[in-house]
Amino acid sequence: MKNASLKLLTQVPLLVDLPESAIEWLAKVARSEQASRGEYIIERNDTSQRLFFLLSGQVRMLDMNRQGQEIALAIIDAPTHFGELAVIDGYPRSAAVQATTRCEVASISVKEAETLIYTIPQVSQRVMKNLAAVIRKNNLHRMVLQQQNIVNRLASYLLGQLPPNLEPEHKVFIRNLPTQYDLGILLGTTRESISRALSQLAEEGLVRKDGKNLVLEDVAGLRSLIDEP
Amino acid sequence: MKNASLKLLTQVPLLVDLPESAIEWLAKVARSEQASRGEYIIERNDTSQRLFFLLSGQVRMLDMNRQGQEIALAIIDAPTHFGELAVIDGYPRSAAVQATTRCEVASISVKEAETLIYTIPQVSQRVMKNLAAVIRKNNLHRMVLQQQNIVNRLASYLLGQLPPNLEPEHKVFIRNLPTQYDLGILLGTTRESISRALSQLAEEGLVRKDGKNLVLEDVAGLRSLIDEP
Repeated sequence: MKNASLKLLTQVPLLVDLPESAIEWLAKVARSEQASRGEYIIERNDTSQRLFFLLSGQVRMLDMNRQGQEIALAIIDAPTHFGELAVIDGYPRSAAVQATTRCEVASISVKEAETLIYTIPQVSQRVMKNLAAVIRKNNLHRMVLQQQNIVNRLASYLLGQLPPNLEPEHKVFIRNLPTQYDLGILLGTTRESISRALSQLAEEGLVRKDGKNLVLEDVAGLRSLIDEP
Repeated sequence: MKNASLKLLTQVPLLVDLPESAIEWLAKVARSEQASRGEYIIERNDTSQRLFFLLSGQVRMLDMNRQGQEIALAIIDAPTHFGELAVIDGYPRSAAVQATTRCEVASISVKEAETLIYTIPQVSQRVMKNLAAVIRKNNLHRMVLQQQNIVNRLASYLLGQLPPNLEPEHKVFIRNLPTQYDLGILLGTTRESISRALSQLAEEGLVRKDGKNLVLEDVAGLRSLIDEP
């Protein structure tokens, strides 16, 4: 593994502050790959069980609904890991993973991943915390999808990006907002509907675009939108 | 803890085959409780972080949608554990837990739960496998709720009860089917609609009631119902 990649690897939250010996071992066993925009890093129902580290770029996790439409479960940014579910339970991949930008990834085999996850207590704990966070996010996302109106659904999604223990009175920045296309497949609608919904929220003074970020100008206003259906 | 309860405790999958010393310690620290039907064992947004073992009976995990309606996330039967999410991430309870029958539960404090989960590798692994199963079940349940028609939704739910790696050709038993009331709050509809949908599936020869169990007489037929919306 190149030094630059190795430096990125140590910034993956799952691996931060591990003993040097563990990082040296990972650098030796990890396989580096590049993925170009649109490329699938994991295919749906793939039976491979490698654990992946996203060193740079962004990916979307995709599932299909019963009608065969792709729906996005999540959009995730580097540095992070993915693919741990199949390592833990041995079942086929629950989601496909597609690069939304050029990505650099490193991966390790299921045996190596088991060693990492089960023999380093710090990593075990982080995996558990991460799985717990996925469960809470999914619960929230199910609520979001229950909103019939797309504007309310978008407001609900944006509020869901705030940490669960945050009770903000003022403005909040959401950095690296997914593209309108990705928001569409996250929220079960089209890019055009997302564009209209964002404009409507902006006109009402509830949000403001700021380059790749979105400023939630009025969190209470967004909340009132979804509390009163 | 009484001997009878202790015997039930050792049957909780999370605790099966633990060293005797661990079970003796649990028996000493665990607090036993009875819950009567309808009683809440955990309230929503409860900030307590005890880990619970359901020794006998059945509970439902309840969340609220944005309209304040209760929706069931899951119905779970003894012997099992619940409440590990708050132990792991320290956030308020993600769901309320209500006894659907008379229940016997044992619980341990967050400190004791951390000791159990983080210092016994066997338990760490089981917690991870369990969280992974919850994530996969939730993904499936989101798909179920996307079915507009209640008959299709019920068919989708029933198929979701089969293990992910099972490809059955013949009949399958679903034991301890939740009540029609619980199926209603699981599937976002009423008890009456569930009753009608079950009758329709039975008339079409796809399922057959057998006391508290349900026989899936024609898995392929159920599948065709949801694959062709």
